[in-house]
Amino acid sequence: MAGDEGAGRPPRRLALVLEYDGTRYCGSQYQKNAPSIQAELEAALTKLTGERLRVALAGRTDAGVHARGQVASFATCSQHEADVFVRGLNHWLPADIAVRRAVEVPAAFDPRRHACGRHYRYTVHNARERSPLWRQRAWHVGVDLDVEAMRRAAASLPGRRDFAAFAGPLPGREGSTIRTLQRCEVARRAPLITLDMEADAFLPHQVRRTVGALVEVGRGRRTPEEFEALLQAARPASAGPAAPAHGLCLMRVSYPDLDLLPMDCT
Amino acid sequence: MAGDEGAGRPPRRLALVLEYDGTRYCGSQYQKNAPSIQAELEAALTKLTGERLRVALAGRTDAGVHARGQVASFATCSQHEADVFVRGLNHWLPADIAVRRAVEVPAAFDPRRHACGRHYRYTVHNARERSPLWRQRAWHVGVDLDVEAMRRAAASLPGRRDFAAFAGPLPGREGSTIRTLQRCEVARRAPLITLDMEADAFLPHQVRRTVGALVEVGRGRRTPEEFEALLQAARPASAGPAAPAHGLCLMRVSYPDLDLLPMDCT
Repeated sequence: MAGDEGAGRPPRRLALVLEYDGTRYCGSQYQKNAPSIQAELEAALTKLTGERLRVALAGRTDAGVHARGQVASFATCSQHEADVFVRGLNHWLPADIAVRRAVEVPAAFDPRRHACGRHYRYTVHNARERSPLWRQRAWHVGVDLDVEAMRRAAASLPGRRDFAAFAGPLPGREGSTIRTLQRCEVARRAPLITLDMEADAFLPHQVRRTVGALVEVGRGRRTPEEFEALLQAARPASAGPAAPAHGLCLMRVSYPDLDLLPMDCT
Repeated sequence: MAGDEGAGRPPRRLALVLEYDGTRYCGSQYQKNAPSIQAELEAALTKLTGERLRVALAGRTDAGVHARGQVASFATCSQHEADVFVRGLNHWLPADIAVRRAVEVPAAFDPRRHACGRHYRYTVHNARERSPLWRQRAWHVGVDLDVEAMRRAAASLPGRRDFAAFAGPLPGREGSTIRTLQRCEVARRAPLITLDMEADAFLPHQVRRTVGALVEVGRGRRTPEEFEALLQAARPASAGPAAPAHGLCLMRVSYPDLDLLPMDCT
């Protein structure tokens, strides 16, 4: 399908909604000598268009983190219809990455800067014995968790706050640790516990550190009140270790004037 | 944990409930030069008990088929408590196999012959584009399926019947193709369609052939009435090709006087 049918025409910009199983990747971003979502996507785009394209991603996901609604964007001179990008890329991409949708977007679209919301889901497999079928999608916690206590603790999170307690020990590139969290819901559907978090943006590892601290509450090692005090004190990195990567999934990225995925599609 | 603390005592028999991800196995049964559930389980038992044990399995699952409630049984001289078998085997088994429960059973217990019911679940991923996260657990069908038509066709299945249409071209070892199907339920939870089938016993590939034929109904290639006529005619292997193995999961095996897994545990 490579060709130069677009030669001379001004480049267009497209946005892609991606699903992937992050198990065998070093993460979403390109790294030398390690497989990444970005490198696989750029290689598939070159096969489809004949161009060497640079792809930008909305959210940086770590090694082992999955996605159902990651957003990627790139400029191209190819004149393929958006739908041809979906089918063509799904032909070339490996089985653990797929494009769910392709949409033409304005030339200035930046998937990371223009995003106004991110939804992450963390899954805990809460049963005494480990589960082979959930091993790459959920964090196995072998002691019975007190979901009610986790819910009470989680209720203190939503709002515009300083989330320094759930940040890394060093300040991020952006400096400020203030973010706006829209929701943090804890739901049990035995043997799974899911934690859904939505915010304008997250600090690096914020979701996994929050889950780590909420599971400490569920184990009874910390009360919901102590959890809230931790949040209020906003002492950098005080929340403790992050939950493992393989339980995390980027469900959706939202934009002010662009509905990339209908609500019933996550 | 190996030892001869049981030397001289009469052997006991234990039953195990197993969960596994069948992706990288040749199936449940031992095969020379190919990884099987049986071989992994026997190797783990040898590590735990120091004995060389032969394991019998309730249901024969093919390469790629998964299980949440396969049942295995073996005789041992080891005096470990049942719970030690659960934890010890989960220590030695690979990540894609686990023991969910261990129960002491009568010496004559035969997991295959004594089983009075099997519950299989087949999962279809029904969306235009393939799903990386479901690729090893569900059959991707890219055209919109008519679930109502599939349900009407499935309604003709329960009862004591000759299921020859869904049997292989050669008669099975048991001769008769008569089985009693308790239920065949088709449920949609977009983008998934699940098909739950329960019977006293199934012919080889019966579940996958039934799903294959029901999906033909869902595609509109065959009416529910034609499906029922196929069943009634009972002409061997007339239902057409089987659905692929990786969508199938053995959920539970039931016994007349033995509750291996509480109802809320599947």
